[in-house]
Amino acid sequence: MTTTIDGSRIARRIRARVAEEVAAAAEAGTVPGLATVLVGDDPASAVYVAAKRRAVREAGMRDFHRKLPGQATQEDVAAVIDELAADPRVSGILLQLPLPRQLDAATLIDRIPVTKDVDGLTTASAGLLARGERGLRPCTPSGVIELLDAEGIALKGARVAVVGWGALVGRPLAQLLLRRGATVSIAHEHTTDLPAVTRAADIVVVATGVRGLVGSEHVAPGAVVIDVGIHRTPHGLAGDVRSAELDGIADRITPVPGGVGPMTIAMLMVNTLRAARWGAEREIVAA
Amino acid sequence: MTTTIDGSRIARRIRARVAEEVAAAAEAGTVPGLATVLVGDDPASAVYVAAKRRAVREAGMRDFHRKLPGQATQEDVAAVIDELAADPRVSGILLQLPLPRQLDAATLIDRIPVTKDVDGLTTASAGLLARGERGLRPCTPSGVIELLDAEGIALKGARVAVVGWGALVGRPLAQLLLRRGATVSIAHEHTTDLPAVTRAADIVVVATGVRGLVGSEHVAPGAVVIDVGIHRTPHGLAGDVRSAELDGIADRITPVPGGVGPMTIAMLMVNTLRAARWGAEREIVAA
Repeated sequence: MTTTIDGSRIARRIRARVAEEVAAAAEAGTVPGLATVLVGDDPASAVYVAAKRRAVREAGMRDFHRKLPGQATQEDVAAVIDELAADPRVSGILLQLPLPRQLDAATLIDRIPVTKDVDGLTTASAGLLARGERGLRPCTPSGVIELLDAEGIALKGARVAVVGWGALVGRPLAQLLLRRGATVSIAHEHTTDLPAVTRAADIVVVATGVRGLVGSEHVAPGAVVIDVGIHRTPHGLAGDVRSAELDGIADRITPVPGGVGPMTIAMLMVNTLRAARWGAEREIVAA
Repeated sequence: MTTTIDGSRIARRIRARVAEEVAAAAEAGTVPGLATVLVGDDPASAVYVAAKRRAVREAGMRDFHRKLPGQATQEDVAAVIDELAADPRVSGILLQLPLPRQLDAATLIDRIPVTKDVDGLTTASAGLLARGERGLRPCTPSGVIELLDAEGIALKGARVAVVGWGALVGRPLAQLLLRRGATVSIAHEHTTDLPAVTRAADIVVVATGVRGLVGSEHVAPGAVVIDVGIHRTPHGLAGDVRSAELDGIADRITPVPGGVGPMTIAMLMVNTLRAARWGAEREIVAA
């Protein structure tokens, strides 16, 4: 029998724990705060930012939000980031992607101080992850690790196939898994025999952005399958995995929606709390 | 029949090409320079630094060298790095490792400006590699890629097993291979069934520091085997691979010595040249 992993429940538990710690921090006099920066009028981005702001308020944290027009210049966005970087009430800064075409996203992301980089996407955070040093890790890959931990799935010595080598999920996830002692294989669009790679794995994580890429031919009996994909279809949301095919083959599988998705926002809350603590330490050091 | 890959010949060719480009740069008025910093009296380190300085002079580059006593403090070494960082004649700075125990190596490495980081070991360089941005890559993994290229071995779509996940070789090498379109599996001390991982690979790179770890049971017929290990034995130098066992199994294999070793110094020369060009660009931008 294949079990469905309830990401929503695990995410709720993490968010409740964050709310408790925020309440304790508030009693001690410091309330963590997240600043979301939204440029332009992309409807999907507006939905995502609204969900993040709601989670911030539910966790008892301060919600700072900046909305810039779609024709904002590089200098406009840079000035907002610099202002938020200098504001001690702002623990974390989230620049919602994608940005309008006239903006250079990489340069703007790298303006976020490493201690406020709650998305973990700056070059500096990538370097700290690569070096195994303290830093904020990208939310979705951290969420995948938390999900596996919550399910009691051992990572040390496990063979894990990461399908997709994107900057947001696959690359940082491979490193997080390796730090935990997993033997990791990374497959992508140039991989010639994907089933050979994924069938050798105890855990298969799919983050390709290709709807229904992975099916029964890719998964060994008893494997755990984590589906990071999310696609809007006429019949509702769907993932990168043809999950119906895996019933009776996989041991456990994450659904879409309700699997990895809720974990991303939960880990954003965790990162904001961590950023607040890190920032407070640095103030003490500087003082 | 198993062919031995002649790393010394490939390295010589690269160094000759660097020397030509250095001569052209000198005619145009700029001579690249490498500063080697050696702390203490470790005999192996002294031998390595001497070999690097010899290669620098043979390439027609400026050889800057600083020797500090074994009891040098963190501040002593930091001051030397800062001085070299500020010197426009110094294109690259190499801090020879390991450092004496009283020194914090990571902090000292991170003092090297990213444009002079010819060893590619700073957190900033690791971030640039992880993000796929312009930067200097560590010499040994770059040397492995150059070796495979020189042998005409296709990387796109190839299955590569990287055995060893160290900061100097395995980690950066996995990323360089993925950038080239290889499907990469990374194994290490927690891997439970190493032969299963390596036998699935077209190319096996071994960088574990464990003498003779890999033998005939690990290698599929026709595979290419790259041995990064180097160990002093009573019978001369040896690698991480029991190469005699692979005769007739592997298609090609690197010897120890004369395989990857000479490539490391050759890539240090390439990196110094690249650093000189990068530094010159930044001066133009700053002027």
